[in-house]
Amino acid sequence: MADPAASGGPPEEGSAFRPRFSAEGLITCVTVDDGDGAVLMVAHMNAEALARTLETRVVHYWSRSRGSLWRKGDTSGQIQSLVELEVDCDQDVVLARVRVGGDGGACHTGRRSCFYRRVESGPEGPHLVYVDPSA
Amino acid sequence: MADPAASGGPPEEGSAFRPRFSAEGLITCVTVDDGDGAVLMVAHMNAEALARTLETRVVHYWSRSRGSLWRKGDTSGQIQSLVELEVDCDQDVVLARVRVGGDGGACHTGRRSCFYRRVESGPEGPHLVYVDPSA
Repeated sequence: MADPAASGGPPEEGSAFRPRFSAEGLITCVTVDDGDGAVLMVAHMNAEALARTLETRVVHYWSRSRGSLWRKGDTSGQIQSLVELEVDCDQDVVLARVRVGGDGGACHTGRRSCFYRRVESGPEGPHLVYVDPSA
Repeated sequence: MADPAASGGPPEEGSAFRPRFSAEGLITCVTVDDGDGAVLMVAHMNAEALARTLETRVVHYWSRSRGSLWRKGDTSGQIQSLVELEVDCDQDVVLARVRVGGDGGACHTGRRSCFYRRVESGPEGPHLVYVDPSA
C-alpha cells in the first residue's frame, strides 16, 4: 500500500520530511539546550543550512543581516552540536536540540539565552525587566 | 540621566519594549509550558494580538490562514494563561510561558506539542520518526 505521506498526504502525519520554506526561502528554527530544554535562541535556516545541519550534525543558520550561511560558533566557539532535530505539525518550524560548545552561550550579547528580559505591565504601558538581574 | 533605551539605544539593553514586527506586521511567538518548559507551539502575533495577550493574560495569536485574531482555546478549551512573556535580544521574537487549560494540549492534531516528529537521516535522505511512537 502506498505511503499516504509519500503520495502527498497531509504534512501532519507520516514520515515524509517536507520542510515548508517561506517566500524568502527560510524556515524558523527554535534552538533549545538538550540538557535542560531551555530555549536559547530563534533563528532561520535556508535549504542549504538545513541540509548542512543534518549532514554535519553542527547547526547552521542563514544570517538575514549578513545574507550568508552561518555556522554558529565559528567565531565565538559556541558551536551547537545537534542532538535531535524535530519538526512541527505543518512542517514550517524546526526545533534543534543542541549541546553548546565554548562557554555554553548562544546570544550575541554574551548571555546563555537570547531570552533574558520579560515584559511587565505598568501605568505607562509595557516595559522590560531582566529575568536574572545579575545577567 | 536619560534612559539610553528610551532615547533610542540598542534593542538589546534597557527597559524599552519595542517589538519588531515583520513587514507583514507579525512577530514570532514560541509558546512553552510553564511547568516543564516544553516547547508546545510556534505561531505569530500582530500588534493587536500582542496587546490583548498582555492586557488579558490569555494568549492571542494572529491566524495567517484565517486572517483573523485568534484567542487560542476558544473552540478547543485549550486556553493558554500567560505566566510570563519574554522577548529576545533584538526584540523580534517573544516567548510565552503558559499554563494550558482543557486537556492540556496545544496542537491542532490533538497532541500536547506540535513537535512530535524528529528528522532522521537514511540512505534515501531525511525522513520523519515519531518521537513518542504511541502519540
